[in-house]
Amino acid sequence: MSRVDLPAEIPTIKCEGMERVGTAADLTYQHVMDARKRIEPYVHYTSVLTSSYLNKRIGAELFFKCENFQKAGAFKVRGACNAVFGLSDLEAQSGVATHSSGNHALSLSYAAGRRGIPCHVVMPRTAPQAKKDAVTGYGGLITECEPSTSSREAVFGQLQAQTGSEFVHPYNDPRVIAGQATCSAELLEQVEKLDAIIAPIGGGGMISGTCLTLSNLAPHIKIYAAEPLQADDAARSFRAGHIIADDAPNTIADGLKVPLKENTWHFVSHFVSDILTASEEEIVEAMKLTWQRLKIVMEPSCAVPLAVILKHPKIFRSKRVGVIVTGGNVDLDSLPWMS
Amino acid sequence: MSRVDLPAEIPTIKCEGMERVGTAADLTYQHVMDARKRIEPYVHYTSVLTSSYLNKRIGAELFFKCENFQKAGAFKVRGACNAVFGLSDLEAQSGVATHSSGNHALSLSYAAGRRGIPCHVVMPRTAPQAKKDAVTGYGGLITECEPSTSSREAVFGQLQAQTGSEFVHPYNDPRVIAGQATCSAELLEQVEKLDAIIAPIGGGGMISGTCLTLSNLAPHIKIYAAEPLQADDAARSFRAGHIIADDAPNTIADGLKVPLKENTWHFVSHFVSDILTASEEEIVEAMKLTWQRLKIVMEPSCAVPLAVILKHPKIFRSKRVGVIVTGGNVDLDSLPWMS
Repeated sequence: MSRVDLPAEIPTIKCEGMERVGTAADLTYQHVMDARKRIEPYVHYTSVLTSSYLNKRIGAELFFKCENFQKAGAFKVRGACNAVFGLSDLEAQSGVATHSSGNHALSLSYAAGRRGIPCHVVMPRTAPQAKKDAVTGYGGLITECEPSTSSREAVFGQLQAQTGSEFVHPYNDPRVIAGQATCSAELLEQVEKLDAIIAPIGGGGMISGTCLTLSNLAPHIKIYAAEPLQADDAARSFRAGHIIADDAPNTIADGLKVPLKENTWHFVSHFVSDILTASEEEIVEAMKLTWQRLKIVMEPSCAVPLAVILKHPKIFRSKRVGVIVTGGNVDLDSLPWMS
Repeated sequence: MSRVDLPAEIPTIKCEGMERVGTAADLTYQHVMDARKRIEPYVHYTSVLTSSYLNKRIGAELFFKCENFQKAGAFKVRGACNAVFGLSDLEAQSGVATHSSGNHALSLSYAAGRRGIPCHVVMPRTAPQAKKDAVTGYGGLITECEPSTSSREAVFGQLQAQTGSEFVHPYNDPRVIAGQATCSAELLEQVEKLDAIIAPIGGGGMISGTCLTLSNLAPHIKIYAAEPLQADDAARSFRAGHIIADDAPNTIADGLKVPLKENTWHFVSHFVSDILTASEEEIVEAMKLTWQRLKIVMEPSCAVPLAVILKHPKIFRSKRVGVIVTGGNVDLDSLPWMS
């Protein structure tokens, strides 16, 4: 798969308090190093696990970077902390805000809590109570909206006008991408001579961070993105050469339903070797296999990389492959192989 | 709880090929250091995980030593490898044998496989197929018996006579105890200034190994054993001052149903501060909590320590406590909170 062109227009992203970064294309490895220093007191340097069973079965060496053990249960806390702790005191005063009912909301709430500033989260009133409880458990302040994009945007706009809070997008933000990039920077320290790194792709924040690190430190390491077949907008975008959004993505890997945006598209289109997909059945099988063999609790999204490795063994055979396990926030009362 | 006297008679245990150890009382820290060197190529130096949520909730600092990430999925591989790799070549020729349908059978099969010698496992023909598959998956050779003690002993006796294989008891064997002791030796390197270590107790192999290490290296660190209330033979033995076996222990923590034996009783009676118990409900709750917060897959047995910590918070408050997570071989299709 050849690389495609950068779209003509990338919008300017506000990034005050820390170094100013206009667009994702302006990010350098210095931003990653700054992020590491900035977030180091608030995040875990996560473990890497291996399974000789899986290695033997696949004929490769897999190194699982366990962001499910991360603070707030997911890699997203890296980007959230980088954004929150990169604000000037003046900017931070009014707090931060986002719209998410997933790991970014938890992570931003966690980061804001560590800094002692408010975190406003707009969530549909129909979101599961468990998700609302998780956000409030990390100190987030929920404002409910109706379950529609128009209501969410209206409520979010009103909230920002009232609070003056800083919007931190879950992934389309250079500060967030620089934060996520710290994950692969650690992995390069932990595992020598990697041939490839593979991570799930939804909005593309983790993949973009991985591209940022590897394109600077180890451009010979291939970067693969793994996506559910039933939410394959990134794979289709990659092949088309421009962002295509899914109409109604429907996958068990619910963290991966969101579309690429300009800043993540920059990295995906320039630095990713390929985007591979797996079916729902393959994802569930890989998820159960990881729980059984690695003895870790992880989200369905994290199983997509192993699912595509099992599906495309030739690509990975005899290779040393880093696999980013993105998060562990899963409902233990409804596991997919139990239904 | 004061310490009780050592029983008058401790039988001599055969231990050829490596240093000869008559009884558990003859074990020194040199045996642990020898074991570490011997097993190092075959076992993982396992991670320690923490949870700020659990620490805050309990008001203590807990350090979870993750033997669920260990080779063959449990700490038992330490003792099994020490026994197997401590055999002389002549002794090893005829292989090893045990009767177990749990982690010891897997571990001994794994260890024998690494050495390239046969491992004979006597299992009741009624044992779940999944357990038989797991043993054969690690290369163990199963001989079936009827589900009774008399049949097991007869079949095992016949097997040993035929094969000349070396019996490796799951826990009542100084070689096994010295192997299990390497776990707390690692933990002492990984975490400074521990006040206590707590581990589940069944036959007492892990607790005995912990006593062996701590009594030599850090006698000020308290040792607690955690036991299911519905299989509380060790707690009752501890209080009575002599070994009492359970009539019909019935607990979800099925690795902990076995009774103490002379060699483990030596350590339990001399070095354990207390044996604390938890109900089935408390064990399941602690198990689910650990999966949710630490994001690890572990057996019900491993949840007993956290269950007793939650039940007796005063004992552990403001303390730095090592918690041995003994294994992760659990049936993902029948989790206790799903029934």
